[in-house]
Amino acid sequence: METTLVRSIYRDTEKFADKDVKVSGWIRTIRDSKSFGFIELNDGTFFKNIQIVFEDKLDNFKEISKLPISSSLEVEGKLTVTPNAKQPFEIKASKISIEGKSSSDYPLQKKRHSLEYLRTIAHLRPRSNTFSAVFRVRSLAAYAVHKFFQDRDFVYAQTPLITGSDCEGAGEMFKVTTFDLNNVPKKEDGSVDYSKDFFGKETNLTVSGQLSAETMALAFRNVYTFGPTFRAEDSNTSRHAAEFWMIEPEMAFADLNDYMDTAEELVKYIIKYVMDNAPEEMKFFNSFIDKGLFDRLNNVVNSSFGRITYTEAVDILLKSGAKFEYPVKWGIDLQTEHERYLTEKVYGKPIFVTDYPKDIKAFYMRANNDGKTVAAADLLVPGIGEIVGGSQREERYDILEKRIEELGLNKEDYWWYLELRKYGETKHSGFGLGFERIIMYITGMSNIRDVIPFPRTTGSAEF
Amino acid sequence: METTLVRSIYRDTEKFADKDVKVSGWIRTIRDSKSFGFIELNDGTFFKNIQIVFEDKLDNFKEISKLPISSSLEVEGKLTVTPNAKQPFEIKASKISIEGKSSSDYPLQKKRHSLEYLRTIAHLRPRSNTFSAVFRVRSLAAYAVHKFFQDRDFVYAQTPLITGSDCEGAGEMFKVTTFDLNNVPKKEDGSVDYSKDFFGKETNLTVSGQLSAETMALAFRNVYTFGPTFRAEDSNTSRHAAEFWMIEPEMAFADLNDYMDTAEELVKYIIKYVMDNAPEEMKFFNSFIDKGLFDRLNNVVNSSFGRITYTEAVDILLKSGAKFEYPVKWGIDLQTEHERYLTEKVYGKPIFVTDYPKDIKAFYMRANNDGKTVAAADLLVPGIGEIVGGSQREERYDILEKRIEELGLNKEDYWWYLELRKYGETKHSGFGLGFERIIMYITGMSNIRDVIPFPRTTGSAEF
Repeated sequence: METTLVRSIYRDTEKFADKDVKVSGWIRTIRDSKSFGFIELNDGTFFKNIQIVFEDKLDNFKEISKLPISSSLEVEGKLTVTPNAKQPFEIKASKISIEGKSSSDYPLQKKRHSLEYLRTIAHLRPRSNTFSAVFRVRSLAAYAVHKFFQDRDFVYAQTPLITGSDCEGAGEMFKVTTFDLNNVPKKEDGSVDYSKDFFGKETNLTVSGQLSAETMALAFRNVYTFGPTFRAEDSNTSRHAAEFWMIEPEMAFADLNDYMDTAEELVKYIIKYVMDNAPEEMKFFNSFIDKGLFDRLNNVVNSSFGRITYTEAVDILLKSGAKFEYPVKWGIDLQTEHERYLTEKVYGKPIFVTDYPKDIKAFYMRANNDGKTVAAADLLVPGIGEIVGGSQREERYDILEKRIEELGLNKEDYWWYLELRKYGETKHSGFGLGFERIIMYITGMSNIRDVIPFPRTTGSAEF
Repeated sequence: METTLVRSIYRDTEKFADKDVKVSGWIRTIRDSKSFGFIELNDGTFFKNIQIVFEDKLDNFKEISKLPISSSLEVEGKLTVTPNAKQPFEIKASKISIEGKSSSDYPLQKKRHSLEYLRTIAHLRPRSNTFSAVFRVRSLAAYAVHKFFQDRDFVYAQTPLITGSDCEGAGEMFKVTTFDLNNVPKKEDGSVDYSKDFFGKETNLTVSGQLSAETMALAFRNVYTFGPTFRAEDSNTSRHAAEFWMIEPEMAFADLNDYMDTAEELVKYIIKYVMDNAPEEMKFFNSFIDKGLFDRLNNVVNSSFGRITYTEAVDILLKSGAKFEYPVKWGIDLQTEHERYLTEKVYGKPIFVTDYPKDIKAFYMRANNDGKTVAAADLLVPGIGEIVGGSQREERYDILEKRIEELGLNKEDYWWYLELRKYGETKHSGFGLGFERIIMYITGMSNIRDVIPFPRTTGSAEF
């Protein structure tokens, strides 16, 4: 008999009702009395378990009854709809084969475990309700990103991770090398001889695919990256990981407003896609992780995002009379407390803050005519603050070159980036969305270590 | 007026016929006579250009006429269908605005350039026909991979790139470090003190996400990875890159035949998806890159893939009387010449070769009862040989443990991998498909450097 997936039985119960089916999966709970027992079996394809009823007429009734949880089984039997019971249906087992008997010291016993403990068994935690829900949502959200852009004919640009240059001219990076660190080749003057390294020069892990994506946008018009990026920042917080995924769209013939339109659409699309395609998981998060989740997400999906300038934002904060840990004045980088105040207390919905002071933004952002600000915009959402950052890019050769020089960046590193401004420059814009940040937002999980299957953080690269 | 994408005009010409439209894009060619001129404009969204006719009644006629190619324009005018001309329609410009005037030393002039030269201008080559086609196909193929698996409810597992362990117990890896290489911290005995490094231990870039994917498969049943992997192999060939993308599905409750069924379906799906969604690009490849392309791809899509054992394959090769550079005998790893002989000369279609000698395969592959072979299978396709490798995984704790010891691997590194065999072991299988390899196969491009936007190879990490 063909194996049926539990997802199919939940999604199309009628088709299987009163029919013999075969399922396979892992025991989540098992209880028995003398002559019969119940198993909650999870087959991995669906958030919910399926109930198996087994009786002592089975040859191996005793052996089954004593199985530790997480043992894997193959079960045949009739699917019976149970409209008056807690579960919608159950399988009356006619045959149960043991595929793999688990050990009784299985670390994921039924009792509630702390998230901290579960991180120490990252190879098993996807079998818990919480992480089963998180990682399925992560998968669906990733697909939503691709579907959003591909439906709009954006080209997916897989930009390199190993890089000889440093996008932001800042950001602490990981070195990539094949040197024997016990014996690093040196030049006569005692400095490292990178010409002997694998790539013949110093290389790092990228902090952003943006500059590469811009080269693609100036050919394909609309492109996006979606891949891993790295920060070697020594910050042990609940929001920083050394390895995380970023989505970085770039659009030619697009200005700051076009970027904001696209980002607003994208954020709403991802949330809606996940809510539509993982209703069981989302209900779980709303019940057990964050009771305000649905309200918050529905508010985002149904709002028209606000747009104010940085200068207006600073005025509002100054006039608010609110007490902040970091004092507000024109020129500061907005802190999370300021961002949240604006989006939560003042607007009660997501807002874009635009036209930041140039001194707190990256060199490639387009200078405004006022000489003080750049055409940048951050998207702030209730609950966390900044979730998207982006800008119109400086497309004017002279101004970009001057900015690179002003900031003391090495112009030779950017020869190809500058050439994009020499050969067919167009206005263009782009943004970055931290994938883990939106997963945290959608699930209500508050630590980035709990939305990445095997997180890499300061001092930790386990599994 | 709203800007219309050239893709929309090609796909839905009727809607725009005889209407005023606005398009923007880059000049691919321009020619003029005294009173009128023609521009082939490419807007990035479509492989083909759109023809613009401009006349001297435009104020800036002279300026337009002298524009270097790759300059960017905004054009308004009436879309006129031209059934008797080479191009299906043209725009009679009523207004042309210059967005960015290119420099006349634009390196991508109309003449044919060598692929080698184009690699030196990787920031501009996506604007050429060849690379426009390659990278759009790459994008569509990537989406096909996601769509294939998501339509089948596989969970996308984003496995870590920075790793403390080495999947295959072999493979040359890149080190990841934040050490100052001028001054590497040493222990008292003079060896490197990795406890002082960012992660508190030695870390590398992964060569495979498989082991992590297995942990996910034993929770979600069906999962796939799709992400970058790395090899620090010093091999300067047309088929090796230091950074490339891999697709690695893992399926619980699946044996070797299930893997082969899925891999066959996947390969056919990707090819069909690209042929359906990039007909212009594919026609270009079939005409200009590889005239046998369509025949080869159609043969793959329409064949039922063969399945033979390694032992049968060796027999066939021995009996063939063919001369090979590498002599054939039972126990050798099949070389590309052997693989191609089998799939091209003997079968004339893709074949799986199964049950390889255990000594030439990885430790995690499931031991067959004969004591000599493992439940592995490689997919060989006409034109290149191996394109997919996979196996049933060893799910028996004792046998796996023994194999790890036999091969002298460090058992402590695999504690969590072994535990998957202790807690709810099931038969499971998986495979790896090198993404660049299938892009080369679909496009007919013969060098891996030409299917990656910014390739990283021995001695080269430019851009």
